[in-house]
Amino acid sequence: MEFVTGTAKKERAELAAILAGELDEKQVTVNGIVHTVRAMGEVVFVILRKRDGLLQCVLEMKETDVDVKLIREAAAVEVSGVIRREERAPGGFEVRIEEIRILSEPAEPMPFAVSRWKLPVTLETNLDHRAVALRNMRERAKFKIQEGIVRGFRDFLYGEGFTEVHTPKLGAKSAEGGANLFKLEYFHRPAVLQQSPQFYKQMLVGVFERVFETAPVFRAEKHNTKRHLNEYTSLDFEMGFIDDFTDLMEMEAGFLRYTMRLLEAEYAGELALLGITLPDTERIPVIRFDEAKQKVAEAYGRQIRSPYDLEPEEEALIGQYVKETYGADFVFVTHYPSRKRPFYAMDDPKDPAYTLSFDLLYDGLEITTGGQRIHDYQMLLDKIEARGMTTEGMEQYLEVFRCGMPPHGGLGIGLERLTMKLIGEDNVRETTLFPRDITRLEP
Amino acid sequence: MEFVTGTAKKERAELAAILAGELDEKQVTVNGIVHTVRAMGEVVFVILRKRDGLLQCVLEMKETDVDVKLIREAAAVEVSGVIRREERAPGGFEVRIEEIRILSEPAEPMPFAVSRWKLPVTLETNLDHRAVALRNMRERAKFKIQEGIVRGFRDFLYGEGFTEVHTPKLGAKSAEGGANLFKLEYFHRPAVLQQSPQFYKQMLVGVFERVFETAPVFRAEKHNTKRHLNEYTSLDFEMGFIDDFTDLMEMEAGFLRYTMRLLEAEYAGELALLGITLPDTERIPVIRFDEAKQKVAEAYGRQIRSPYDLEPEEEALIGQYVKETYGADFVFVTHYPSRKRPFYAMDDPKDPAYTLSFDLLYDGLEITTGGQRIHDYQMLLDKIEARGMTTEGMEQYLEVFRCGMPPHGGLGIGLERLTMKLIGEDNVRETTLFPRDITRLEP
Repeated sequence: MEFVTGTAKKERAELAAILAGELDEKQVTVNGIVHTVRAMGEVVFVILRKRDGLLQCVLEMKETDVDVKLIREAAAVEVSGVIRREERAPGGFEVRIEEIRILSEPAEPMPFAVSRWKLPVTLETNLDHRAVALRNMRERAKFKIQEGIVRGFRDFLYGEGFTEVHTPKLGAKSAEGGANLFKLEYFHRPAVLQQSPQFYKQMLVGVFERVFETAPVFRAEKHNTKRHLNEYTSLDFEMGFIDDFTDLMEMEAGFLRYTMRLLEAEYAGELALLGITLPDTERIPVIRFDEAKQKVAEAYGRQIRSPYDLEPEEEALIGQYVKETYGADFVFVTHYPSRKRPFYAMDDPKDPAYTLSFDLLYDGLEITTGGQRIHDYQMLLDKIEARGMTTEGMEQYLEVFRCGMPPHGGLGIGLERLTMKLIGEDNVRETTLFPRDITRLEP
Repeated sequence: MEFVTGTAKKERAELAAILAGELDEKQVTVNGIVHTVRAMGEVVFVILRKRDGLLQCVLEMKETDVDVKLIREAAAVEVSGVIRREERAPGGFEVRIEEIRILSEPAEPMPFAVSRWKLPVTLETNLDHRAVALRNMRERAKFKIQEGIVRGFRDFLYGEGFTEVHTPKLGAKSAEGGANLFKLEYFHRPAVLQQSPQFYKQMLVGVFERVFETAPVFRAEKHNTKRHLNEYTSLDFEMGFIDDFTDLMEMEAGFLRYTMRLLEAEYAGELALLGITLPDTERIPVIRFDEAKQKVAEAYGRQIRSPYDLEPEEEALIGQYVKETYGADFVFVTHYPSRKRPFYAMDDPKDPAYTLSFDLLYDGLEITTGGQRIHDYQMLLDKIEARGMTTEGMEQYLEVFRCGMPPHGGLGIGLERLTMKLIGEDNVRETTLFPRDITRLEP
């Protein structure tokens, strides 16, 4: 009987160790994908693409019997040789190739040059060949940044006493209801895909007090804009024992600050590759919905057309306004009108036409919706009745309120939108690995 | 203009600080849910349930004008008073109540006594009132352990150079195909819910070399057993540049070991509450599929009925066999027959009737399926053809192989099953927050 002991056979040199100078003058074996091959007379440069960057390998034609024609772009190879300090190499080190072993070869050339600094294709072509396009260094760097954001969200919230939860995406009913639900048949019963974990995260506040989830949500919206997806990753949290809804905004600002520091510390290479300057998250201005509308109408001579909601153009102008006035990249807009918020939103006792809620705008785009929720059973029933809604299918949701719930609230952050703004893209598909929109279900 | 600075107003005492003795003799305000109220003559004990444990609060009837009748089980309260060392209190400290503020009250009594050590209801009743049942201390502890497992998975893999990815759950086609797909309409086109991120994680090996995902998967299987769910959380990873499929097993064993240490270090309270002894993950035996079948047939006098697959009873007996023989809780079973593995599985060049694959059994239950995948384009096409399958809908999957892929493999771990075995439950619904099975779509 053999045994597995969880110890990897680390015979391959890692890029980080090479570039840190730990293997200088050492004989190593290193693997990677052939990024480019450049023959310069008697010397051939083989640049390997590794998961964390590029590595220059050099082949002296005089000293080798390696057949260079076999080294093709996109081949997976294993190189043996000696590490040498070399100022002109990316990262300051290179491998002098002694042997090169082809692990696998492409069957055909790439549909476009992924090794180029900027991918030479339109977004449509990029998305049609997504898994190939993502091999481009800058394309993949976007998703390392995205990873950093999700890590920051989780690590910050673990530290704040939150519990991570996994709630079902298949259900009989969803929190917001309405037309934007994907419907399916579940063993001869009608079912929906959850458009948000709202009901579940609230129910779990009664259990864990503070919960978060990072999971897909599904919206059958027919919008086909640069900022809409039909499936996206939502960073959700919900917390009990809040004094008021500003506790939620402080928590979100804390997450953003923590995450920017994490990115600086652990994703510096990707930030540099993409030329990203991190936004200021130390002081985020707060403005009421009605004031924001008014200010923007005055400042930019724009007529208020829809009094209960912010139009995308208004959001953009609010972003512009706080940038010009406070140098701020983010702004919390608070007290949205009750009629545009879901039934579970807590109305402002001072003026029930407004809710104790907020959106967070980043560079003029909504990336978060949040607020305090109703925790009182009777108040919840009254609001459901006042809206002419039915409690059917909400029995278990309502039961937790009947059994007592602390004052609470929460929020949801659109991961792809936050990544998009951080990176400075203008289409949310650029920061989604495999986007789903009204026309795109593949790859 | 006000500003949010990400600084929470920490006026409330946290349980950890109280139990660490940091607030001894201090005046504090602390909040929580009333877990139990016990009147003992002149003294009333109010036990608060907080997110990380229980806190004893004591009210001296002579010295207070608090109306005890208002303090009901399940109410959310805020208590002010002085912290005192008290040996008989859970954790060694209590709060001498001076003031108690009711933040919210339940409308009705709980449907059952959640404060009991063991919940006095059947699993069916538990699941029907899930969000209330989870308030029980031991019920919720299971999901803290589950959190620890997912944290361990991610943190270990980050450390091993993996990139976290988010792949779409809505698609035109899924990796395994077949009858167990949930189907839906996607803007007048047929779509499916992904039964695994298989295609996507393989495609992303070409991008990031090593990737993982922790996300829901959907299986429309009609099995209604103690170990099946129709939606579950899959811990998936896929890695390139493997030498052979044992690299994958070593990585999984590394994850298990890392996670057991994380649980010991950070979830000791929950382990104690549930009376869990962690399994041995230092040495995991490995046995070939056909040998395992044979050994179990011999050892337990069991006839081999299905030569190409392991029956649940056989898995259980293999678990028993390695426990009796090696004291092992886990066992890797390798080289499953090709005809029972999907088309993308790499056949063993020494005997193509078997694959370079494995399952991990934990206490006789399959919790992981993994293996090396085919990375050669032509080999993949040949296998698809040999199986009489069509490449339709797989164009983008196949494109990454045409453009070159390193040798690679991966695995998927059923989170709820792993949690179930770790905790010693025998029904996977016990370790799923809101389970989905053939009869259950709510809550």
